[in-house]
Amino acid sequence: MTCLQMKRAERAQLAMMLEVCAYPKPGNVDRCHDYAETRIEHFLASTIFAREALEEAEQGTGRIGEIIKHAVRDTSCHAGGNTHFGAFILLIPLVYGRDIAGALRAIEQTDTSDAVAFYKAFASTSVKMNATDELDVNDPHTLTLIRDRDMTLADIMQHSAPRDMVAREWVTGFPLTRRGADLLKEFGPGRQSIVDTFLTLLATEPDTFIIKKHGADVARTVMLSAREVLDGQRTIESLDEECIRRDINPGSTADITIAALYIALGEGWSWDY
Amino acid sequence: MTCLQMKRAERAQLAMMLEVCAYPKPGNVDRCHDYAETRIEHFLASTIFAREALEEAEQGTGRIGEIIKHAVRDTSCHAGGNTHFGAFILLIPLVYGRDIAGALRAIEQTDTSDAVAFYKAFASTSVKMNATDELDVNDPHTLTLIRDRDMTLADIMQHSAPRDMVAREWVTGFPLTRRGADLLKEFGPGRQSIVDTFLTLLATEPDTFIIKKHGADVARTVMLSAREVLDGQRTIESLDEECIRRDINPGSTADITIAALYIALGEGWSWDY
Repeated sequence: MTCLQMKRAERAQLAMMLEVCAYPKPGNVDRCHDYAETRIEHFLASTIFAREALEEAEQGTGRIGEIIKHAVRDTSCHAGGNTHFGAFILLIPLVYGRDIAGALRAIEQTDTSDAVAFYKAFASTSVKMNATDELDVNDPHTLTLIRDRDMTLADIMQHSAPRDMVAREWVTGFPLTRRGADLLKEFGPGRQSIVDTFLTLLATEPDTFIIKKHGADVARTVMLSAREVLDGQRTIESLDEECIRRDINPGSTADITIAALYIALGEGWSWDY
Repeated sequence: MTCLQMKRAERAQLAMMLEVCAYPKPGNVDRCHDYAETRIEHFLASTIFAREALEEAEQGTGRIGEIIKHAVRDTSCHAGGNTHFGAFILLIPLVYGRDIAGALRAIEQTDTSDAVAFYKAFASTSVKMNATDELDVNDPHTLTLIRDRDMTLADIMQHSAPRDMVAREWVTGFPLTRRGADLLKEFGPGRQSIVDTFLTLLATEPDTFIIKKHGADVARTVMLSAREVLDGQRTIESLDEECIRRDINPGSTADITIAALYIALGEGWSWDY
């Protein structure tokens, strides 16, 4: 096997591995920082165990909702909690459809069975829904509601898009994923480029994972702080330290960085240098 | 998939990942230390790309020499040089035969075709042979010599055993691998146990990778220093610092630690805690 023959499933695994190794990434698990309950090994174990679901996506014959459910099931074999749920939501259609255009075609074809499978996967994670959400994952009536309304998985993402930047990628054509891939190529090969891309994405939009946990004001402050780092007004280390101290982790920006890595690797960007 | 259903190929990948993440491991690449040309990402990329060869081993139908060649070929797709050659020499028969007893049966069945495939794999790596070795990998006559003498891969390992502790595992029944697995279970679950096992193995025998690069005296000194760390007479950090400064890396002890992790994981040892 040469690099050119790399399978898309392997490329997705490489993206997951490279993202978690890059450091410092303010507030997130990286090579130099674990959380008490979620450590770098959990992310890397999830990367290894995701292989079968990613290969299923690469075959392009199954259904996306079911494949996301398989990825979540296969990677939950550790005590580190949800590690890559958001990343799978992005990677599975991208691997399935080869690229962003193909992912969008695959997303158009989702139906109610995808929505139901996705909700079952979602219910098995510890990811929080908005408390006032009528499609609450903890409510047994949700599946009935989805079926009654003939909602597709794309409809579910449309429903979640205002409050979730990962879902927003599905319904707006993966603009941040595309932007991230372009940034990686602009910044050049290697690890520092991943950190710079992560930071630039963090400075672009408030991270919705932070919003769900700490509210919109905190997410906006982190976004502005990331901008300050880019402008040389504070160090990335000080932002990292502040995020860790306040338990603020920009998890959705990390998910989008993984998707961006997948795209950039497919377009010739090199992690090796 | 639950943990109990983990495939042997995945278990081997998990062992490779856990070994490189454990720290501090004196002189070796770990979570907190890269070498200039070989970084943690190279080891983890190799872990991802080894999947197919490990699955081939798990099927147990192919030939071991050929599978080692495939593993080396598939994982050389990066600029980090040889990362897991020694680990594959141990893991491939272990995965093939399920456990140490099965690996020994598989090793008994190697023939000249395995030896030839192995030498071709070896020639593609940057691993050094002993300069005076009559089976020098750089000598085109070596393959003729192997064929003329009907040497099996087990014979090759027998030939290398005095100077290579990885080869020695093949011909002596994997005693250090077994010892490492027992140590992991004694030390208990998790990352620190890997570090303690690595250090104990390092204090047990002179690392032959160090011997090849720096000579027997240096390897013996490192062994005694590891003993001092175990006895509380010096810190692991000071030994790590000294090894890094002198470019001493106990690579064969790391290979055996990976094999030990594979065995221990199969016997219920938990990396998660």
